Amino acid sequence: MSERLAVHENHNIIYEIVIEKDFENLKSELNKLKVSERKLCIVTETTVGAIYTREIKKILEECAKETFVFTFEAGEKNKNLYTIKDLYTFLIEKHFDRRDMLVALGGGVTGDMTGYCAATYLRGIDFIQIPTSLLAQVDSSVGGKTGVDFDGYKNMVGAFYQPKLVYIATDTLKTLTKREFLSGMGEVIKYGIIKDKEFFYYLKKHADEIKNYEEQALSYIIKVSCDTKRKVVESDFKEQGERALLNFGHTLGHAIEKYLYMDMLHGECVSVGMAGAAFLSYDKGYLSEHAKKEIIDLLTLYELPVSESRIYVEKVLAATGSDKKMEGGKIKFIVIDEIGHSFIDKSVSLSEMESALYYITENRMEI
Amino acid sequence: MSERLAVHENHNIIYEIVIEKDFENLKSELNKLKVSERKLCIVTETTVGAIYTREIKKILEECAKETFVFTFEAGEKNKNLYTIKDLYTFLIEKHFDRRDMLVALGGGVTGDMTGYCAATYLRGIDFIQIPTSLLAQVDSSVGGKTGVDFDGYKNMVGAFYQPKLVYIATDTLKTLTKREFLSGMGEVIKYGIIKDKEFFYYLKKHADEIKNYEEQALSYIIKVSCDTKRKVVESDFKEQGERALLNFGHTLGHAIEKYLYMDMLHGECVSVGMAGAAFLSYDKGYLSEHAKKEIIDLLTLYELPVSESRIYVEKVLAATGSDKKMEGGKIKFIVIDEIGHSFIDKSVSLSEMESALYYITENRMEI
Repeated sequence: MSERLAVHENHNIIYEIVIEKDFENLKSELNKLKVSERKLCIVTETTVGAIYTREIKKILEECAKETFVFTFEAGEKNKNLYTIKDLYTFLIEKHFDRRDMLVALGGGVTGDMTGYCAATYLRGIDFIQIPTSLLAQVDSSVGGKTGVDFDGYKNMVGAFYQPKLVYIATDTLKTLTKREFLSGMGEVIKYGIIKDKEFFYYLKKHADEIKNYEEQALSYIIKVSCDTKRKVVESDFKEQGERALLNFGHTLGHAIEKYLYMDMLHGECVSVGMAGAAFLSYDKGYLSEHAKKEIIDLLTLYELPVSESRIYVEKVLAATGSDKKMEGGKIKFIVIDEIGHSFIDKSVSLSEMESALYYITENRMEI
Repeated sequence: MSERLAVHENHNIIYEIVIEKDFENLKSELNKLKVSERKLCIVTETTVGAIYTREIKKILEECAKETFVFTFEAGEKNKNLYTIKDLYTFLIEKHFDRRDMLVALGGGVTGDMTGYCAATYLRGIDFIQIPTSLLAQVDSSVGGKTGVDFDGYKNMVGAFYQPKLVYIATDTLKTLTKREFLSGMGEVIKYGIIKDKEFFYYLKKHADEIKNYEEQALSYIIKVSCDTKRKVVESDFKEQGERALLNFGHTLGHAIEKYLYMDMLHGECVSVGMAGAAFLSYDKGYLSEHAKKEIIDLLTLYELPVSESRIYVEKVLAATGSDKKMEGGKIKFIVIDEIGHSFIDKSVSLSEMESALYYITENRMEI
């Protein structure tokens, strides 16, 4: 069952997200982009590249003028300007000009870096995304955020830049580890919590099918996730207001990620952060105890962590203070007053964040 | 006599270019940008910084929350990602967030780099330009081109990104060397040649006033130059068609610049390139011999070079082949059929370029 979604800017379609089972239709999608006279460069990393490069390169070679492959070493530690410089050099050597195009093949790291390189090489060339992780499929497919880490700071350097196509093959999810797949579910569940009550309960009801990689369920949750993000982003391209809602669970999640970097996946940190944000929403009197419990239960159903005992509360609090979500010295915290409805709260104090952190560190899940 | 120009995107004003004699009105322009709660960072280089930093910093301190200064070593050789990284690090140390702003104080190198840093730090923060060279005032004030050199290639890495204000003080031109000032006139004359016959003859008639830095004449030529570029750019933001006309003289000029880098200023290379492009236009039967002579004469009136004997024709031809103006293997050469009217010609052969290069190398100005 194939699904498609159009992403707009200023009421014009700027690209489509195509959700398929496999790569059978990639060729026809590429041909729509008139690639026959263009050079293409697959950008991928060692892990994903080993699985898919051969198949994708073959498809690209059937459509494009010439196809190259740039492979970097897998891992967030390589999401930096050194890798970007290697890629610039590679493109210069292959005489890539403004009409040529990059193809991001991999997870979030690959997509973010390829997009950033496309945004800045010759002041911008085209790129398409073939996201192979659930996280990248539901998070990076929409929004145009590209970037690299700098000096230990995540995504400190980047640009807003849109792809020309996002091609998702749900079969790729089967080559992820179960843990990676479930980590992506953290972001999927987030969309339900912040915007879509019905979707939240769909995820509860269909957990078995999803966890068994049933194609129809996967296509559906990817489509709904991308569509929810699309609606939020289209109403707020440069993250002035509405878009901040997507940061639900991320204020605490990012801070946790910073200190448990090697141990926890992004979606897992977000899951703990969402548990904290749910508690904070309850603690401030916005959210019922029952709804808070339903959120914790759904995260747990997808085997996601909702507590983490190794957090140093003081360090996380300090890290929150240097977060990008700070604006003019004020924290923008995303809270919920019911499942499916979130809003920005600028009144959250450090001591309220501290309580939420103690909640998630101390395993006081019975509260 | 103060002048102002509004620059648009999608029919909305995105910023203004303000042309003044000095910095007296900078404060009121800054206040319009609501800077009282924002941190500002002046980005400048050693030469310009030594002259203006103190005065500008004082003005900024009267308006903004906090003002910092980042100074890099003057020179195109420092227009690279190393300087950008130093600037990122400086901004991180000073806790710059998305609401804070950069102030580019200097010539083209400073403007291009500051703009690029603003485009990519935290995926984009605001910046304003205070261009102090004629070249930067008439060329970089409009068009949103930012970037750095990479691996010996000019502006290989960059982004399209718009400032929030361009503040030009014509008095700054008096602190340039005469040669730097006249180099900027190369770009000014270009606007006359490609788009505005009347302006071309204004430049001929008022050469003495301009060369004597008379304020009214300077304000006028800067305004007309920026306005011409504005009209071209607004009709073609991403350099698909019309905007290519601004490259008149630049195809050969850039190639010359690459080989005589240390010796010649940008506007001087463009001047030689324009002489070559005028010859080529004449040689192809588009332009009259008389008009070609008028162009050579005006460049000469402003003491700009129209020939250069040190060019290795073969090397320049090869360099042209890797120019960014190549698209899908074809060169886009800008030619003129009369003074004030230019167009894109995709039929120019390598041997026609070779003739033009021999013309400008062999000093055959009598042809």
